[in-house]
Amino acid sequence: MKPITILAFSGSLRQGSWNRLALEAMAALAPSHVSFAFADIGSLPHYDPALDGETPPESVVRLREAIAAADGLAFATPEYNYSISGVLKNAIDWASRPAYQSVLKGKPAAILSATPALTGGVRAQQHLKTILSATLTPVVQFPEVAIGLAPEKFREGALVDAKTREFLEGLLGALTASISHNSARN
Amino acid sequence: MKPITILAFSGSLRQGSWNRLALEAMAALAPSHVSFAFADIGSLPHYDPALDGETPPESVVRLREAIAAADGLAFATPEYNYSISGVLKNAIDWASRPAYQSVLKGKPAAILSATPALTGGVRAQQHLKTILSATLTPVVQFPEVAIGLAPEKFREGALVDAKTREFLEGLLGALTASISHNSARN
Amino acid sequence: MKPITILAFSGSLRQGSWNRLALEAMAALAPSHVSFAFADIGSLPHYDPALDGETPPESVVRLREAIAAADGLAFATPEYNYSISGVLKNAIDWASRPAYQSVLKGKPAAILSATPALTGGVRAQQHLKTILSATLTPVVQFPEVAIGLAPEKFREGALVDAKTREFLEGLLGALTASISHNSARN
Amino acid sequence: MKPITILAFSGSLRQGSWNRLALEAMAALAPSHVSFAFADIGSLPHYDPALDGETPPESVVRLREAIAAADGLAFATPEYNYSISGVLKNAIDWASRPAYQSVLKGKPAAILSATPALTGGVRAQQHLKTILSATLTPVVQFPEVAIGLAPEKFREGALVDAKTREFLEGLLGALTASISHNSARN
Repeated sequence: MKPITILAFSGSLRQGSWNRLALEAMAALAPSHVSFAFADIGSLPHYDPALDGETPPESVVRLREAIAAADGLAFATPEYNYSISGVLKNAIDWASRPAYQSVLKGKPAAILSATPALTGGVRAQQHLKTILSATLTPVVQFPEVAIGLAPEKFREGALVDAKTREFLEGLLGALTASISHNSARN
Repeated sequence: MKPITILAFSGSLRQGSWNRLALEAMAALAPSHVSFAFADIGSLPHYDPALDGETPPESVVRLREAIAAADGLAFATPEYNYSISGVLKNAIDWASRPAYQSVLKGKPAAILSATPALTGGVRAQQHLKTILSATLTPVVQFPEVAIGLAPEKFREGALVDAKTREFLEGLLGALTASISHNSARN
Repeated sequence: MKPITILAFSGSLRQGSWNRLALEAMAALAPSHVSFAFADIGSLPHYDPALDGETPPESVVRLREAIAAADGLAFATPEYNYSISGVLKNAIDWASRPAYQSVLKGKPAAILSATPALTGGVRAQQHLKTILSATLTPVVQFPEVAIGLAPEKFREGALVDAKTREFLEGLLGALTASISHNSARN
Repeated sequence: MKPITILAFSGSLRQGSWNRLALEAMAALAPSHVSFAFADIGSLPHYDPALDGETPPESVVRLREAIAAADGLAFATPEYNYSISGVLKNAIDWASRPAYQSVLKGKPAAILSATPALTGGVRAQQHLKTILSATLTPVVQFPEVAIGLAPEKFREGALVDAKTREFLEGLLGALTASISHNSARN
């Protein structure tokens, strides 16, 4: 099968964050032709149009190239104050410029969220979907993966909840289907 | 009259950004007992719970102290990808911790937005209102100030549009009324 | 104590809906000077500006009068397709006209949601808060009452979950405080 | 070319509403193999799960059949209180049941909005996109058609603004492309 590369974004910078772990679990579930890389969003400066001239910051260039090179994206977001984290929004803002050549445009994406709370980050996902509609990034609509009570679902960094694993597999399958479909279209 | 201090947040880091200019215009319209200071959100690190222990970063401590010391807040946001900027979200996330002693809780706030586009940032304001409902920050509901076609409304950094000036005065008046009301309550 | 009247809106028309039951539980918890009435939103026509002339439909007149006469409002909404129900939105649209004399303006309101799902309707609440910011209706910010797994929390129509009862009492207390505060202000 | 049928929803019931006129303008711009029909959402009862049993109301059955028979959908919404109209939400709620056989699932849709105000209904579109993400309805992402200052753009019921016409043509083209693409997929 044709190799597929997914660029994963963890919206939490915390070492061992539930979102990072969920993305790693997704990567571990991937079939052999699908490989994951992680975007380094923590090293980006805060977005400032003045920095985004002919020679943007190195970290920005690397992010844009990594997105352009990827076949699809996977965003995992915590829910901070009913929305996505500032650092994830910042990464999307950098990646979305310049507007008419945005590397986010048309790039298939899956989204998920994980939180210690019962609600699993569904409000953050609403904001993320709205934001990705602005970047013209097609988002996989189903299954919706919002991992509530996250601390109970991982042990020593590994996902141990069978149902969550099934959801992540379903989401990955939907993302790779969307990628294949997208590449057939182009 | 009792002195009132407003802490202003420009969601755009760009020198001479429309949002920064709008806040400066608001400050210039303020009566003598009302003074403005600007939050330095550009020097904050990206939020990481691991950094937020017993000795948080200096810039974070300064931000929290500035909010605690202010009588009210004024947020001006650009609209990046239908939402607020990452750097502004990041500042709110830092300020909102620790959750039960958040300096944002109960602090009266005014919000506005300015964009070159016609729509003036109304979508970013929706997200900002939702985010500030999570921080339990009471937001002035009226007037709504969304400055569209911003470049036409400023000249050499000064607000020259009479109607926008009137709106900013109205918003400032509503904010100071909310502050007085709030302090009478406590 | 001065009598307080609350007008309650159940966003679900279903007999014995969880939202209706939650409002009834709230009414049952109210101290003797606080009385509840229920808005009849099911008999409203679909909003049409052409119907809203000099003699609006009877059901609309009754709704507006009931809101005007109430000291505060309590909205309970199901979550249909990530938002509030059409029938509740329709009632709010009718009540919000004519814009400059809207009976919703400045009227303190509490909101809650109940659903069979874990997430308890938090997404519908986001939309409801946004909608009520447009009508300039001040919404109680805390506590947030989103009743998930609703069928487990009621028995034969009565609320049997102690924690949910506590939340409803807290919300009612916050609403009556906001009403007292509001009437002192005016 | 294979005939394509579009089912159009006007979120405003007002005779000659800008949204209805915009949909009619879109229909008039359609090539000969593309035909439009209008959904009758004004005759639906308010959604009540109790009515939605083995024999749902006639108007509901007709709506579901019309959606099932259409190749694609076009939603035009006014902005009432920062959201879509209650009557449109009600129609979507009816159409979305029963959840696992929803006729809205996978049906390509275009959305637009028209308002007398400058902002053209962009906030209502946010809510509509969120709602249609719940129904798993794929929404055309580009172009975004938000018709502000609508009364200036129509004369005697006909669209006279060239730029708006261009946008509507672009949107229709994107919708029919999405439909062809969708039918190739299935």
